[in-house]
Amino acid sequence: MTATVPAPTLMRQEIEEIPRAVARLLERGGPQIAAAAAALRAADPGMIVTVARGSSDHVCTGFKYAAEIMTGRPVASLGPSLASIYGAALKLEGAVCLGVSQSGRSPDIVAMSDAARKGGAFSLALTNDPASPLAGLSDHVIDIHAGPELSVAATKTYVTSAVAALWLLAEWQRDAGLLAALKDLPAQLEKAGHLTWPELRAALAERTSLFTLGRGLTFATSNEAALKFKETCQLHAESYSAAEVLHGPVSIVDEGFPVLCFAGADAAEDSLAQAADDLTTKGARVFATTSKVAKATVLEHVATGHPMTEPLSLLVSFYAMVEAFATSRGGNPDAPRNLRKVTETL
Amino acid sequence: MTATVPAPTLMRQEIEEIPRAVARLLERGGPQIAAAAAALRAADPGMIVTVARGSSDHVCTGFKYAAEIMTGRPVASLGPSLASIYGAALKLEGAVCLGVSQSGRSPDIVAMSDAARKGGAFSLALTNDPASPLAGLSDHVIDIHAGPELSVAATKTYVTSAVAALWLLAEWQRDAGLLAALKDLPAQLEKAGHLTWPELRAALAERTSLFTLGRGLTFATSNEAALKFKETCQLHAESYSAAEVLHGPVSIVDEGFPVLCFAGADAAEDSLAQAADDLTTKGARVFATTSKVAKATVLEHVATGHPMTEPLSLLVSFYAMVEAFATSRGGNPDAPRNLRKVTETL
Repeated sequence: MTATVPAPTLMRQEIEEIPRAVARLLERGGPQIAAAAAALRAADPGMIVTVARGSSDHVCTGFKYAAEIMTGRPVASLGPSLASIYGAALKLEGAVCLGVSQSGRSPDIVAMSDAARKGGAFSLALTNDPASPLAGLSDHVIDIHAGPELSVAATKTYVTSAVAALWLLAEWQRDAGLLAALKDLPAQLEKAGHLTWPELRAALAERTSLFTLGRGLTFATSNEAALKFKETCQLHAESYSAAEVLHGPVSIVDEGFPVLCFAGADAAEDSLAQAADDLTTKGARVFATTSKVAKATVLEHVATGHPMTEPLSLLVSFYAMVEAFATSRGGNPDAPRNLRKVTETL
Repeated sequence: MTATVPAPTLMRQEIEEIPRAVARLLERGGPQIAAAAAALRAADPGMIVTVARGSSDHVCTGFKYAAEIMTGRPVASLGPSLASIYGAALKLEGAVCLGVSQSGRSPDIVAMSDAARKGGAFSLALTNDPASPLAGLSDHVIDIHAGPELSVAATKTYVTSAVAALWLLAEWQRDAGLLAALKDLPAQLEKAGHLTWPELRAALAERTSLFTLGRGLTFATSNEAALKFKETCQLHAESYSAAEVLHGPVSIVDEGFPVLCFAGADAAEDSLAQAADDLTTKGARVFATTSKVAKATVLEHVATGHPMTEPLSLLVSFYAMVEAFATSRGGNPDAPRNLRKVTETL
């Protein structure tokens, strides 16, 4: 008799593909990135707007902080209802519009991107399907080269979209440090995928609510983690800025309330460590990806050497952890309750 | 012997003051609003940025949708960490920056507003303290005339800030319909404060997690409601766009999961009613402020006759409900766990 080893979930397979998918993007994406970056340098946009939903919108949140820090230009996330519900006539001369969608097909994302273009914005699409409607209406298309994504919970398309967005910024701003850091990512993400934070998983076992925290460059990772906890583990995780959480949300923190704090090696690290310790003092069971905490529990993590890429190494460790946690509870992250892969919203 | 009637909470007293506070703002605020609106017409900003935290940031979310629909200009919410943590050099020529803060004193809000002004933005402050540092550094100050707010949970400063923001837009765009609708608000909010949604309170009694929903113009009301549930009732309420909730968050919805859906009489009403019914089908116990639902429970509400003021009448009914719910559970909404009135963040 042989013991049956369960087949790895699609989600696990796709998490393991992330380093290869990023390497493929870096190998093949150069010409499209260079063309879009040249167009951005020529246009010198006064502002940036983004259009996305779900995980792709978290990619845009990460892009927002990076772009605002690197270019000084404000980034506005446009709610798709502006076009699809309210029919607003946007005035976007001098703006660039970045649409992000794995499928490139959600009708409201397509309508909003089209409205932005008609309002005068120069338009870019980040998508896994260069033949999609979103790609078709955009001035420049950047293929994220993720390959087929079959898991309902997006993982490799998040990371490849985020890498493409950072790469675009690095080329636009001719930032040699960030370009070099992106080349290091595949090997770093490979290591990050082997960390699965067992001490965090143990603390989550008997809880139903938790907070994830980030600040600045790590806020997008926090947003994405909270969504994945909901999708794959049916845990009510909510994401906050470490600054916002102390303004009111902290009121639901009771003894043992779990908090997962994403801190990278950047200027926000001290404030995240401080928030992690403050919440520990209030009774929360806090885990943080920084050794600067005095009271919270430190989670092992892969340093990338660049503050804009580190949120992605933290996220890949999170993905590995959350898939392990979901399957350990007997759940199937490939078949989340109430969901299917492509959600089309009007 | 006489039975002891408990004194009303500060929160209850301040909710009851809302109609008078709005009337006072409308009576006294005219000159400041007119001056700021004239400056906006002269400047014709190409974009708008906002700076705020907590409830004030929800005011900015409401302002964002209204401003984007009315002016066509994109509105970007700037994370205060851009200035206070990252020291980003913003390029905001041709932009207007709206800072919203009851106290006008949180160091990160002051620093971010100052950085926006130094980056070239024309600056406006909405505050309850025209002698505050935020007011001092701004080109135009709009006093929200809320009077002292002693409750930790902000209510009347939310509504007066939101009215001031809408009034500014109405004057800027010379929108006679919205100006007239604002004049009707005090009487409407008086009525709204008498609705306290007992059927919703009964459904919440045994739950710890719920969703609040909005879309477009009602999204800010949903955000604010979720925060108040946390602050005053220690309930883990999370706010979603009715479009986003079906992308992944819906996975935590089990039998009886409460959902409070804020729908106003506007273009988004049908999509909110549809989401309310879809979630009911998935087992949720959904309450909605629209009679367009077929399966969800309709909550009584005060129609205002204008899609941009109705989110405020819905919010005042919510405030009345949540204070009643908090006190009925034996809690004291004036002394929320882990909180004090002014949170100063660096």
